[in-house]
Amino acid sequence: MTRRAYGGLAPGGGDALISTAMSWGNLLFLSGRAAVDLKTMKVVSDDFEEQARNVLDQCVEALREAGSGPEHALRVQCYLLNAEDFDTWNKLWAEYFPAPRPVRTTICTGFAVPGMLIEVEVTAGIADGPQ
Amino acid sequence: MTRRAYGGLAPGGGDALISTAMSWGNLLFLSGRAAVDLKTMKVVSDDFEEQARNVLDQCVEALREAGSGPEHALRVQCYLLNAEDFDTWNKLWAEYFPAPRPVRTTICTGFAVPGMLIEVEVTAGIADGPQ
Amino acid sequence: MTRRAYGGLAPGGGDALISTAMSWGNLLFLSGRAAVDLKTMKVVSDDFEEQARNVLDQCVEALREAGSGPEHALRVQCYLLNAEDFDTWNKLWAEYFPAPRPVRTTICTGFAVPGMLIEVEVTAGIADGPQ
Repeated sequence: MTRRAYGGLAPGGGDALISTAMSWGNLLFLSGRAAVDLKTMKVVSDDFEEQARNVLDQCVEALREAGSGPEHALRVQCYLLNAEDFDTWNKLWAEYFPAPRPVRTTICTGFAVPGMLIEVEVTAGIADGPQ
Repeated sequence: MTRRAYGGLAPGGGDALISTAMSWGNLLFLSGRAAVDLKTMKVVSDDFEEQARNVLDQCVEALREAGSGPEHALRVQCYLLNAEDFDTWNKLWAEYFPAPRPVRTTICTGFAVPGMLIEVEVTAGIADGPQ
Repeated sequence: MTRRAYGGLAPGGGDALISTAMSWGNLLFLSGRAAVDLKTMKVVSDDFEEQARNVLDQCVEALREAGSGPEHALRVQCYLLNAEDFDTWNKLWAEYFPAPRPVRTTICTGFAVPGMLIEVEVTAGIADGPQ
């Protein structure tokens, strides 16, 4: 079985510290994504829905780059700063992930970067079998 | 390898937003479970042990429905609201998961639904091989 | 496919409550590790870097015992008490995990044991195939 890294994230700039995605056979792990400009370490918006769409767009792009997609997602972890954003999160979740939807866990927590309102982490299958 | 969804959870009522469990070959992912009535979005009890037993019973039921069980659990994530519930959590953990017990991570965090004291998420194997 | 448990952790002393690692085929799950003396349930140091090195050393040891290693790590979850420790965490991360580095999620949260500053959980591959 092959371990394969995709992309690279560099919090604070410089060399890539983190892979965007890592596959192990046909199982795909994505890094937690945030609506943060990794060069400046500033959030791209103060609005929850804008942050959430940015994060989900990043997840979809990372899934596609590895030969997967939201329709192959298995598990999604969502970290929210504020519980009051739960309804909007549910709305966007239903929009981005087609039925039958993945399993999910949503908790409220803090983040390393000021202004972050959401972080999302995806585990998915790669449908075409072991890479 | 086949992605297969089991059950469905509908926070706030309506259509199922989240699968109860999702298998990928013989690896099984469960949604984070809480002691919440999903129709009313109210917790079923204010007592930690009652919430925890409700959550663990839900996990066992979801594992069994997918051809797995607590004796096949691989990893358990536990989210507690209050650190003082850790001893009770350890007691119930030992009761529900037979030795050799899964790996585990327990952290203290907040939740989207008021009154929630615990959320538990399970990853397990399906012993009879790829479904 | 075989479920195999490695080691054992006993928070508060007594019998092992938690496996150190659990493999399922060639996929390896580690328990969340903390810089805590499990007999006394006290942290081994009040210094973040000392706690983080202790935790990462434990992770490397557990990976090696199961026939894996940091070079086979797929996903790492990091839980920090304080956001200001993020830069030190990034420095140690780069030291312990060789490129291409695993995917990662870092959030700020609380812990069950007073004085804990960091907890780290690793998912890895076992390179030599199913055990």
